[in-house]
Amino acid sequence: MERTLINKIPNLIKETVLLKGWVESKRDMGKITFIDLRDRSGKIQCVGYQMFSDVTIESVIEIRGEIKARPEKMINAESETGMVEVEVKEYKLLSRAEALPIQVNEIGMNETEVDKRMDYRWIDLRKDKNLLIFKVWRLFEKAAREYFDKNDYLQIHSPKIIGSPSESGSEVFEVKYFDRKAYLAQSPQFYKQMAMASGFEKVFEFGPVFRAEKSMTVRHSTEFTGMDLEISYIDSFRDVMKVEEDILVHIITRLKEELGEEIEKHFGIDLVIPTQPFPSMTIAEMKEVLAKLGISSEKEGDLSSEEEKAIGEYAKKEFNHDFIFATDYPEADRAFYHMRSGDGKFSQSADLIMNGLEITTLAQREHRYEILKNQALERGMDIDKIQFYLDFFKYGCPPHGGFGFGPSRFIMKLLGLPSIREASYVFRNPKRLNP
Amino acid sequence: MERTLINKIPNLIKETVLLKGWVESKRDMGKITFIDLRDRSGKIQCVGYQMFSDVTIESVIEIRGEIKARPEKMINAESETGMVEVEVKEYKLLSRAEALPIQVNEIGMNETEVDKRMDYRWIDLRKDKNLLIFKVWRLFEKAAREYFDKNDYLQIHSPKIIGSPSESGSEVFEVKYFDRKAYLAQSPQFYKQMAMASGFEKVFEFGPVFRAEKSMTVRHSTEFTGMDLEISYIDSFRDVMKVEEDILVHIITRLKEELGEEIEKHFGIDLVIPTQPFPSMTIAEMKEVLAKLGISSEKEGDLSSEEEKAIGEYAKKEFNHDFIFATDYPEADRAFYHMRSGDGKFSQSADLIMNGLEITTLAQREHRYEILKNQALERGMDIDKIQFYLDFFKYGCPPHGGFGFGPSRFIMKLLGLPSIREASYVFRNPKRLNP
Repeated sequence: MERTLINKIPNLIKETVLLKGWVESKRDMGKITFIDLRDRSGKIQCVGYQMFSDVTIESVIEIRGEIKARPEKMINAESETGMVEVEVKEYKLLSRAEALPIQVNEIGMNETEVDKRMDYRWIDLRKDKNLLIFKVWRLFEKAAREYFDKNDYLQIHSPKIIGSPSESGSEVFEVKYFDRKAYLAQSPQFYKQMAMASGFEKVFEFGPVFRAEKSMTVRHSTEFTGMDLEISYIDSFRDVMKVEEDILVHIITRLKEELGEEIEKHFGIDLVIPTQPFPSMTIAEMKEVLAKLGISSEKEGDLSSEEEKAIGEYAKKEFNHDFIFATDYPEADRAFYHMRSGDGKFSQSADLIMNGLEITTLAQREHRYEILKNQALERGMDIDKIQFYLDFFKYGCPPHGGFGFGPSRFIMKLLGLPSIREASYVFRNPKRLNP
Repeated sequence: MERTLINKIPNLIKETVLLKGWVESKRDMGKITFIDLRDRSGKIQCVGYQMFSDVTIESVIEIRGEIKARPEKMINAESETGMVEVEVKEYKLLSRAEALPIQVNEIGMNETEVDKRMDYRWIDLRKDKNLLIFKVWRLFEKAAREYFDKNDYLQIHSPKIIGSPSESGSEVFEVKYFDRKAYLAQSPQFYKQMAMASGFEKVFEFGPVFRAEKSMTVRHSTEFTGMDLEISYIDSFRDVMKVEEDILVHIITRLKEELGEEIEKHFGIDLVIPTQPFPSMTIAEMKEVLAKLGISSEKEGDLSSEEEKAIGEYAKKEFNHDFIFATDYPEADRAFYHMRSGDGKFSQSADLIMNGLEITTLAQREHRYEILKNQALERGMDIDKIQFYLDFFKYGCPPHGGFGFGPSRFIMKLLGLPSIREASYVFRNPKRLNP
């Protein structure tokens, strides 16, 4: 007999079905026992006569039973399957659960202390709200790939073990690689630029990035999944801003279409499709706004998390927009490989701030070998260690640019989650390697 | 003026277009210079009068010019754009190439010694054949995801930095993780099983896997992209075999549809959609066949690469099939987490051999806590180190199984490539960390 998913049940009154899932709750009434059975598609009340004595909460069972319409006064309007119940004919215990360390059907996400929830992440993920977060993650990536397909991007899977620390050299994990040292890639930056030197023209990558930062904030993790892209023959970093807007509008549109109702129900958030173009301000203009708001800046060319938050609020108030680009960063505050403005003062780059949190750095890259090498030398970088990267630009390479994007940060902000760990399948920070 | 891709040119006779790409060849005829311009879509001959003196082979240029039909006797029937050429009005040198360390338009893939090609991988990838390999990679993953979408899989991005060596404990890279040791995941095995304990029911993952093996063969690399899946509520590992067959048939069908002609042209291979069910033999039956062929076996429960090759040839001859499953491995030769047969002798698992190379191990997993723990103890494993994994099965977990799959091996075999490094964007082995 074929298994039936629970969300199909309301259409199957009087039929006998085979159900498989978790026992979310159990109410013993003497000879009659009610259980709520949960699978990935929904929940249903099941009624058994003189059974379920060996079944504990969160055990996995299969049930053969008949779908019955409930008497009108027993209909549960709050449940999608509340008009029916299953009269259990027989059941089989597939996996018996021990006494639970954390609860699945607790009200609200933060009832159990977050660290304990993360210790038992696989149980925590059984909650409707958490399952929904990973449906959002899945659709986020699917929608992004729809954009990439439509626009003829190639995909790369770039190496994560690298011979020299990429980019800054700090905050990188060291790997014992046979008889030598290697490092974990902090981003696919160098290797997506390599694809430009290979003539791939437009590439994207989804993959892990590793940051050996000691930060223990709600927005940092030592390992997360990044979305990266790089495109050739751009005229300016503003072309990359346009691409990022298009992708985000497509993604949010798709999320609203397919999961908008569920998101509203579980997170109380009505997704808003952002208008284009996204607002944009220079970092100097932002600093002026911040000064007027009485927020003092430590750095001229960077926003603190407090400043990002204030700029997010300003963008909402001033432009009625969840997103705002920050442009015209002083070159000294940006990566050595960013192209600079004609006068050499500014980096040809932008950050995207979403609801007060930076989710992207984008830039046109410097593709001219001599200029790039000089920019690295100016920063006092060890040229030997990045020569393999500089060589990408020696034998013909088109002008290009791209961005790195943190999907977990995006989803955290989109759903109003308290921490990035809620949007990570398994979370990693300096203290957490478990599970 | 908008850029035109080269493959659109034959339809644009007499129009003026803007082209961007690489100068693949240059022939100076006094005042007239012919160049072949290459972009991701194709190649075209361009003719310039008194120009291109500063342009070297593999430089990147943009050209404004008029499309002209060639006189009949000048038509190059071997080129898709051979009936037209571009009369160049003006050009701009975007990036000048230095003298090339390896050639792009050499005949055949192995003209330059493979190690040198890998040293200059970004130039090597400019070859038509290599670009096609990554179009195949892209479509492989796209088609797999079409299957996953259609069948309602969730996606996970599991952690690559882990607290304990997974599975065997051998062949694992060590990471310096702040003040302690961590390891790189050899596979998402434990974490995709975790998703089963979370009720995700069907999941897949594309991501890097790391193997600290000293193997320097054509089929090994220390880092590669794996495709993994795991599904709940299976009755037997044979359900997983069926899923793998369906996925591969869908992928090869899509590859043939979209890239079949190009593959035939560049690799001389006419893709064959495999018939279902794939042939299947027990490992004991295979050993009998091998004995008859005079191939002696070192191990009862495993195939050497020579044996895999012979079995591949046997499958082709006997079943006219590129694929064959090997089943009924003795449990002692398989992972501790494989479920065993009723009599305890065999592992509930199979390997898939494609053209004589193993590309998959699949299994039903042992989901019963006590039995799983005993199987680990029998192998002398340190239970403390895998307790986090064993715990996944304590609080309810459905029966489940899945497979790990090496797309690069698959593509290597599909296209008849001499080595897995040809199907890896950037290759890694014990001696190669560059670029």
